[in-house]
This record gives sequence, C-alpha cells and structure tokens, in this order.
Amino acid sequence: MSDKNVRLALTIGDPGGIGPEITAALLASGALAGADVFVIGAFSALSGRLPLRERGAARVIPCGEAAALWPAGAFPVFIDTGAAAAYEMGRPTAEGGRASGLAIETAAALAKRGLVEGIVTGPVSKHALALAGFRQASHTAMLASLFGASDCQMMMVSGSFRVVILTRDIPLREVPGAVTMERIETGARVTAEALRELWNIEHARIAVAALNPHAGDGGVLGDEEGCVVAPAIAALRKEGYLVEGPFSADSLFYKWADKGYDAAIALYHDQGMIPFKMAGFERGVNVTIGLPIVRTSVCHGTAYDIVGTGSASPASLESAFSLAVECCIARRRWRSARKV
Amino acid sequence: MSDKNVRLALTIGDPGGIGPEITAALLASGALAGADVFVIGAFSALSGRLPLRERGAARVIPCGEAAALWPAGAFPVFIDTGAAAAYEMGRPTAEGGRASGLAIETAAALAKRGLVEGIVTGPVSKHALALAGFRQASHTAMLASLFGASDCQMMMVSGSFRVVILTRDIPLREVPGAVTMERIETGARVTAEALRELWNIEHARIAVAALNPHAGDGGVLGDEEGCVVAPAIAALRKEGYLVEGPFSADSLFYKWADKGYDAAIALYHDQGMIPFKMAGFERGVNVTIGLPIVRTSVCHGTAYDIVGTGSASPASLESAFSLAVECCIARRRWRSARKV
Repeated sequence: MSDKNVRLALTIGDPGGIGPEITAALLASGALAGADVFVIGAFSALSGRLPLRERGAARVIPCGEAAALWPAGAFPVFIDTGAAAAYEMGRPTAEGGRASGLAIETAAALAKRGLVEGIVTGPVSKHALALAGFRQASHTAMLASLFGASDCQMMMVSGSFRVVILTRDIPLREVPGAVTMERIETGARVTAEALRELWNIEHARIAVAALNPHAGDGGVLGDEEGCVVAPAIAALRKEGYLVEGPFSADSLFYKWADKGYDAAIALYHDQGMIPFKMAGFERGVNVTIGLPIVRTSVCHGTAYDIVGTGSASPASLESAFSLAVECCIARRRWRSARKV
Repeated sequence: MSDKNVRLALTIGDPGGIGPEITAALLASGALAGADVFVIGAFSALSGRLPLRERGAARVIPCGEAAALWPAGAFPVFIDTGAAAAYEMGRPTAEGGRASGLAIETAAALAKRGLVEGIVTGPVSKHALALAGFRQASHTAMLASLFGASDCQMMMVSGSFRVVILTRDIPLREVPGAVTMERIETGARVTAEALRELWNIEHARIAVAALNPHAGDGGVLGDEEGCVVAPAIAALRKEGYLVEGPFSADSLFYKWADKGYDAAIALYHDQGMIPFKMAGFERGVNVTIGLPIVRTSVCHGTAYDIVGTGSASPASLESAFSLAVECCIARRRWRSARKV
C-alpha cells in the first residue's frame, strides 16, 4: 500500500451552473489538503471566485497540454478546458456543455494514464451536453463509454446508507420489462465487488427490493417476484453472495440502519431515490460502481435558478470529495492485499 | 357544536393477532377517558389481558343485542362478537376472520344508526377474512361497501405528514393504466373535502406526485405527466382546488415539512408508503377518507409472529384513537359552522 497522497481529478461541471461556486467553496475550505488534485473545467468561470492567494498562485494548464503534466509539483493544478470567454450564467449553453464534456474526457484521460486514481465530478446539464453535441448526455453514460464499462451502476450513498438504482431514467411503464434476472444478477455482483474494493467490506450483505407492493403477496399482486427477482437472488446465493429479498420496498427502507445491510438494490428510480433523499440528500454522493477507477459525484444538478445567489451548498461536493479519498485508500488496501 | 363526549367504535381486529394486546394496553393507559367507546370484538381474546378492575366491571353485551344499546351509561362498553371458545393465537383462522369481520359490520351498523361518530379499527388479516368467507378481504373495501362510498381513499397520516395512496394493492405493471384523470380528480376532491371536514383546513394545498422519474422530463421519460397528471391538475385548479404538480416524487418528499403542503397524492403504493414509513410509521395512522363517518386504523398488520411476546407497540392504535377523536371534534365544528 502506497502512502502517497491520493491523486484525484475534480471537474467543476457546467460553468453556467453552481459548479464553479461550490468548487471555489471547497477549495477555500482547505478540504483538498492531503490530496493531489487536478481541478478541471472552465477556469474563467472559477477564477473570480477563488481566494486571492489561490488565484494568484494558481498553476493553470491549458487542456491540450495536460499530457505533459507529470511530474506535477504543488497541488491543486488547474486544467483549463475553455477559452477566456465569459460563460453565460444560469442557463444551459452549448459553450457550457462543451467545457463540461471536455472536462470529463480530460479527467478520464488522466485516469487512463494512471495519473489519477479517481474522478470527482461537479454538476453538468444534460441539456447543455446535448447542445454541445455529446451523444451520451450524462456523466455516468459518458464514463461507462470512455472506460468500456458496460456493467457500471449508480450507487447513491449517504453515510452508511447505500442504494443502487438498477433501472434509472426510463418511464415507469418500462420498468417491469427492464427488470430482468440478468440485470439483477449483474447489479448485485457489481455491488458486492464495489463494497469489497471501495469499502473493504469482504462479505457484503445486500438487500433487494421487490417490484410490487407487499413483494407481490405470494403472486396475487404481481408475479415478477416469483418469476424474476427471487430466482435471481437464489442464483446469486448459489454463487456465494449474501443477497436477500425480495423485500417489500416500504418495509425495507423503514428503519434501514437497524437491519445491518451494506447496500440495497432498488429496482427503479423513485423506489431508490425517495429513501435516499429522505435519508440524507444534503450530504449525498452519487458513486459510479463497476468502473476501473473511483468515481464520485455531487447528487444534485446545476441549479441554474440559484447561481450566484450564495445559497448553493457545497455539502454534496465536499462529501463526494471526501468519499472519493476514502474509496481510493480502501482500493489501495484491497489491491495491496491481493498484490494487484 | 355539541360538547358531549366523542362517541367511537373500536374494533380489536383479528383475535389471533396483536389486536387484543394493544387494545388492552390502550384501555390500561387511560387514553379512552373523555370519549364514549364501544370496544367490539372477541371478548374472550381480550378479557384476560384487561386490568382486574376493568375486567370485573366490564359491561359486555353480546353482539346480537347491540341494537338495544342506547342509552349506554358508563363507558367503555364491550360488544362481544364471539363465543367463549379460545381463539388460536399467532395465525389466521376462519374463527378469527369471522370475529373480526363481524366487529367491522357491527361498528358500521352503530355508525349508520348514529350511535357512534367514528370507527377505530385494529389489525385484521385479509387471509383470515377470506377464510371466513368475507368477499371484501380488507377493512377499507368492507367499509366502502357497507357505506356505499365508492370514492373513498386511503390517507396515511403521521403528524402533519399526510399522503393519499391513489392506486393501492395492484401490481406495479398495472399502475400506469390505473392512473387516470378521473381517478386523480376524484382523489384530490375527496382529499380536499376531508382536509376541510376532518382537519378544518379550509383551502388545503395538495401536491400530486409524478408517475415517471424527473416528472417525465418533458416527455422524454414518459408521457403520463403531460397527458394525464397535468391535465387533471389543471382541471382541479379550474374548480378552485389548490392542487400543484406533478412533482418528481423523490424531490416532493424530500424536506416535505418545509414545503407547506397539507397533503400529497402518491400515484401508487410504494411511492407513498416508502416516505410515509420513513416519516413516522411508528405513530402512523391509516385514515379512510370519503366515508360519511370518521374512520382511522392502525397502519400495521396482525403481526402474528410477535403475538404474546410483549413486544407489540400500541403506538399506532393510540395515534389512531386520538386522531379519531380530533377528527370527530373537527367534524362537529365543520358541521356546526354549516348548520348541517
């Protein structure tokens, strides 16, 4: 296990959203001390918000020269994705999408070259990314594609509450068809591996939510529990995974902390996002599991409506950053134990 | 407005479940003082659990003679639905179902004759009711049928958190088809009337959850918001109801208390029951709205597995009882203001 500082890329997200101001707040808080961080994004959107000392001393590298980074010297290092043009604040623009998309690509490139162990991402706008011509208009989809990791999953984390959202941004009508045995099995395996690798939980206990009310009540309220969810769980248990369920979702998330599970698998967006937000959205983190690197993200959006009002909270970005550091350290420990 | 005691029927639920023990705890707590209560159920399941004083002095009337109740004298009055035979504890039986079903029918009969203003119900077993040959194997369905109230709705209440579950015990697959404009409009009207009548909230603010993630994201993630939910809300607002939405469900229930709504309408079981249980299941109450009487219920089941262990909490029954008293008083006030 190395005792070197954890090395991370931090993208500031859409320059027209709250990303720059919460990144500036994170920098000002001193939270980045102890990690080697490349801050990537439209530097012009960030610089005016930096403390004077940081602003004067900032080492800013144009994006195209990021290849020549190593060795880097003092951190943080700013990698500028954009021209000096002022970004329009408070709404999605093609320029903003271009800067935020380029930041993700740059962060992924650094990770692929082994220059960073993880990526922390600020909020992007799907709309702005689409305006800029990015085909995958979400962080997770872009990273899955950049790393060729088709099985990656979205895990929402707040403290010890962790929930994987198995089917995400699809209409509710399509959920029953999208919940397949294969998807559940892959999702649970990726979850168990992530808990082992990123949290060093050797034998993780994972609870799977039911699709139907009262877990289908013996088939009276839907047959997916009997035909799909339960057989997938049985197959996983046969492989040695400590997976339990299907549990009626309302019962599963009630008094979650008392139940001793390391993670839940929710079958669709609202089923997982309602309890996640109620359990602690403010300090919540979106973790992409199943990637070859650590990736955490804020769990909120660009919040265009409050840009510049001073009301944006950096809490989720702070949590995303500190969780990334913890997961990188856990991952070093895991790799070292296995001599990977 | 009358200053007479509120007069209620309290059914003890399935005699083989935790109903008798939580009813006995409620009686022992003195919570019934100040209300005139008919306790209805299998007296043999209850009597051994009563404090000695109550047991000795109990006025027990066989169910068939409940017609001759008025005037009743000292309360509580016990109406015995069952023979003296011992009920098998800890599992659903036809005898238990018969006793609990008969208790509901007796309570409804008292209400229809104006002898009680409301009904508080203990936990029944759908399985036991079905074994006893009751066609509607749930409290709410039985009461809707007994009162000819086809539009009644289930509202889950915990303190100031109130959520109406628009479609209840149906498979998730059937939810999109079951969420119709008519259903939303009727549900919202019944909710607004109930808030006026039972809580004296004259102009209730009601929030409607969306069906799809991110409220359909402008149609990209499902068209039900645009085709069904939003038009229903527009129609309701035209009628003068303060109904808002559709709101992404995970956002709606996050920091609910800060939003100032008097009630939420969830479109399906898990969408409403997950936040309800997380917001305060322990003291939660199930209120049937849209009936001509007040009806509250415990929000848990018979809990056969913990019968007799002493671990059953009477908290939900206590809340159901005190909420029934409050709603009856509010209803008197409402009726008196309108000279009904």
